[in-house]
Amino acid sequence: MDRLETHAAFGGTQEVWKHTSEVLGCEMNFGIFTPAREPGERLPVVYWLSGLTCSEQNFITKAGAQAYAAQHRVIVVAPDTSPRGEGVADDPAYDLGQGAGFYLNATEAPWSAHYRMHDYVVQELPALIEADFAASDRRSVMGHSMGGHGALVAALRNPGRYLAVSAFSPIVAPMQVPWGEKAFSAYLGPDRAAWAEWDATALLAGATERLPILIDQGEADSFLDGQLKPWLLAEEAARLGHPLRLRRHPGYDHSYYFIASFLGDHFAHHAAALHG
Amino acid sequence: MDRLETHAAFGGTQEVWKHTSEVLGCEMNFGIFTPAREPGERLPVVYWLSGLTCSEQNFITKAGAQAYAAQHRVIVVAPDTSPRGEGVADDPAYDLGQGAGFYLNATEAPWSAHYRMHDYVVQELPALIEADFAASDRRSVMGHSMGGHGALVAALRNPGRYLAVSAFSPIVAPMQVPWGEKAFSAYLGPDRAAWAEWDATALLAGATERLPILIDQGEADSFLDGQLKPWLLAEEAARLGHPLRLRRHPGYDHSYYFIASFLGDHFAHHAAALHG
Repeated sequence: MDRLETHAAFGGTQEVWKHTSEVLGCEMNFGIFTPAREPGERLPVVYWLSGLTCSEQNFITKAGAQAYAAQHRVIVVAPDTSPRGEGVADDPAYDLGQGAGFYLNATEAPWSAHYRMHDYVVQELPALIEADFAASDRRSVMGHSMGGHGALVAALRNPGRYLAVSAFSPIVAPMQVPWGEKAFSAYLGPDRAAWAEWDATALLAGATERLPILIDQGEADSFLDGQLKPWLLAEEAARLGHPLRLRRHPGYDHSYYFIASFLGDHFAHHAAALHG
Repeated sequence: MDRLETHAAFGGTQEVWKHTSEVLGCEMNFGIFTPAREPGERLPVVYWLSGLTCSEQNFITKAGAQAYAAQHRVIVVAPDTSPRGEGVADDPAYDLGQGAGFYLNATEAPWSAHYRMHDYVVQELPALIEADFAASDRRSVMGHSMGGHGALVAALRNPGRYLAVSAFSPIVAPMQVPWGEKAFSAYLGPDRAAWAEWDATALLAGATERLPILIDQGEADSFLDGQLKPWLLAEEAARLGHPLRLRRHPGYDHSYYFIASFLGDHFAHHAAALHG
C-alpha cells in the first residue's frame, strides 16, 4: 500500500492511498481523513461514495468535509467510483464503465471480471481501514447521486453494518430512470428481477432494520425529474412506515456547492449515531 | 458581461462571470459569492488573490470560503491570476506569463501590452463590482502565495483603499527569492529600484497607514525556505513597529487543505474591520 498524498488539515491529516484490491483485481486509490486523536484511540468511520465521473479526489478537495470530521471526531474514507486501469473494461460514455461502477457486483461480461464495487466498499475496504488505520468498527455511509444510490443500497443490503445512512441527490430508483436502466442492463443483464437487488426503492420493503434515511435534494438540480426522482423512495418509505426525511432546497443544483452547503447537517446526523 | 456559472451555496449565490477588461486588454473571468441579503442592501467585499497556476476556479471550489462569507455577510470576489488568451504573451514555465501575473504592472515588452494585474485587481475590478453587484465600497484583500504577495502589495501601495489585509504562505520579499527575481526581471527589467515598488518587505518602511497584517504559514510548506521566507517581512515589521501577526503551523503544507483549515480566522479578522 502506497501513500500518494498527505496533508495536514483542520488539526488532522488528509491522505490518499493506493492499494491492490483483490475483490476488484486492480489498483485503487482512496482518500482518508483522520482527525487529531488520543494515542491508541480508534474513531468511527464515515464512508463517502461519489457520483458519476468522480475519483477519490472530488469529495476530499471540494466538499469541506474535513472541518466537520474534525469537529465530530470521525474518520472519513472516500473511495474511487469504479475499478480502474488499462485491463479494466470501459465505455466511452461518462455513465458506464470506469468512473461509473454504480456500487454493484456485475454479473455480465466483460464487466463481471472487475466491477464488484459493492463488495469492495462494503467489505474489502472497511476491513483494510479497520486493520491498518485508527478506525473502530462503527461505520456509516453517505454519498452523492450515483454514490447516494450506492450508500442507500449498501445500508439496505447489509442490516447492522452501518449506524447511519444519508444521501445528496441520490438515484433512488435506478430501475426506473435512464442512468440506471443503461448501467443495470450492461452490468446485470436483461433480467429485471436481478436489478431489484440493487435498487433502493425496490429493496425498502424487505428492509429488516429501520435505519432512518436522510436525503437532501436541490430543486434546481437538472437531473431531478429525469434521473433522481427522490419522491419514489419517499413515497415507498411513507407506505412502509420506514423513517425517511427528504429535504428539498429551492435553488440548489447538483454540484459540490450544494453538497458543501448541507454537509454539516449530514455529519451531525451520522456522528450522533456513530458516537451514540 | 456574461454569467458563466451560477450555483446556490450556503444561502447565497456563487457565480462566475466573464467580462472584457480594458486595463488588461482581454477577456477575464472572476468568481463572486454573494450571501443572502436584504433587498437593496450592499455588502462589503473581500478580494481573494490566488497563487501561481490558478484560475478563478481554485479558490471558489476548494477553500470552503462560502460558509464563512455567508456567516460574516461579506461578498467574496476571486479574479484570475493573469491576463489570458491567444494574443497575450506567455511562457512555457508555470511561474511566468499566463497564470503568473504577480499582481503588478509590467513595463517590459512583450509583457507590458497586457500584464497590468495590479491596476486590474485594485481599480478596474472593484469599480465593476461596486457598480454592477450588491457591493459597498468597503473592501479588504487576502491571498495565497503569489496572491499573498499581491494582497500585501495592493494594501501597502494603496493606503485607505482596504480595511483589512491578510495572507496565506505569501511571497513576502520577491526581490530576494527565485520566483520573484525571475518574474520581476521579465516584467520590470533589470532595475532593482523598480522592483522595490512591488515588494512588500521593501514597501513596508514607506507605509503611511498601520493596517495590521495577518499571515498564516505552514511549516511543512516545501516553498517556505526557498521562496516565501515570511520572517523577512516579520522582522521588518518588528523593526518599524508595524502591526504584523505571523502564525506558523507545524505540519501544514502549501495546499488548499492548509488554506481551508485557517480561512475562518481570516474571514473573522476581515469581517471585524469591514463591518466595524
